[in-house]
Amino acid sequence: MPKLWNETIKAHRRAVRDATLNTTATLVAEHGLASVTMSQIAEATGIGRATLYKYFSDVEAILIAWHERQVNGHLEQLAAIRDQPGNASQRLEAVLEAFALISHEHHGTELAALLHQGAHVARAQQRLNNFIRDLLIEGAKEGDLRDDVAPDELASFCLHALTAASSLPGKAAVRRLVAVTLTGLRPPR
Amino acid sequence: MPKLWNETIKAHRRAVRDATLNTTATLVAEHGLASVTMSQIAEATGIGRATLYKYFSDVEAILIAWHERQVNGHLEQLAAIRDQPGNASQRLEAVLEAFALISHEHHGTELAALLHQGAHVARAQQRLNNFIRDLLIEGAKEGDLRDDVAPDELASFCLHALTAASSLPGKAAVRRLVAVTLTGLRPPR
Repeated sequence: MPKLWNETIKAHRRAVRDATLNTTATLVAEHGLASVTMSQIAEATGIGRATLYKYFSDVEAILIAWHERQVNGHLEQLAAIRDQPGNASQRLEAVLEAFALISHEHHGTELAALLHQGAHVARAQQRLNNFIRDLLIEGAKEGDLRDDVAPDELASFCLHALTAASSLPGKAAVRRLVAVTLTGLRPPR
Repeated sequence: MPKLWNETIKAHRRAVRDATLNTTATLVAEHGLASVTMSQIAEATGIGRATLYKYFSDVEAILIAWHERQVNGHLEQLAAIRDQPGNASQRLEAVLEAFALISHEHHGTELAALLHQGAHVARAQQRLNNFIRDLLIEGAKEGDLRDDVAPDELASFCLHALTAASSLPGKAAVRRLVAVTLTGLRPPR
């Protein structure tokens, strides 16, 4: 039964990988990036140091893999919100609020700034940009959103505006930021 | 005449410093940060290498000093625009447009990202934030700008939104971004 065996191996590898990412994220959050070593990660994950090096070359590579998993999870979450019932303007509002809350909860640290230089972040931003743009096009057709500015430019405007969420004091302020940003997307008076 | 002598020394030092900043900015723009050395800078400035080290410890320190001079120049330029005649909403629009054009022309590079980690940038952003906030307070009193959201939050919203200018294709797109951002600052319908 080679197929089953292969699947077992695959599942095992994914489990080791996932456990390594979780352990590393916890260790870095507790002790800071500079003081976490590959040995500590191997020990805390319950695998050998040699095994760990088969998966990842260094701590930074693990953190980038962890961050990529986080980012993909967030994108899936935002896509699920987009696919809820409602008109485009309402769904855009829900997506932007969820994005702003993610920025607020997870960002504004030095580690976040470092991880955000990765190519996976640029790819994720492009995907997010595209799906915000599609909602803007739909909302403009429905008459709730402005159509006098290119939807790509409006998508870039809202994603940049909402990064202000990372330095806001609380969720109420984040919701006000979303409301102000949405005002900018309404058809001009 | 010790006072005159001191002033001569002071003027001389400022001239050497300014020349060093200019030369370094030109060399880095031409050859990239990684390939510019202190020796090249000394030679191109027309001073000795030992003299250069009396002013700056390394190339990065020169670049930071250069960037600080740029940032202060931009702040002065924005303050001059703020102090033009007109109501607060018009003056805010002029300041935001000038800021967005600066972001568009000077940023979006790796070097910019590096220099923007400096403490002088955080100070400058705080000053800019404060003076945008004051215009927002004035404009709200005049009835042209919204007063239902704290002016500090609105200032942060517009400065973040306008950073989108660095990836826009041209000045017309920058002006549209400013218009969209200003819509977010108007009193709600």
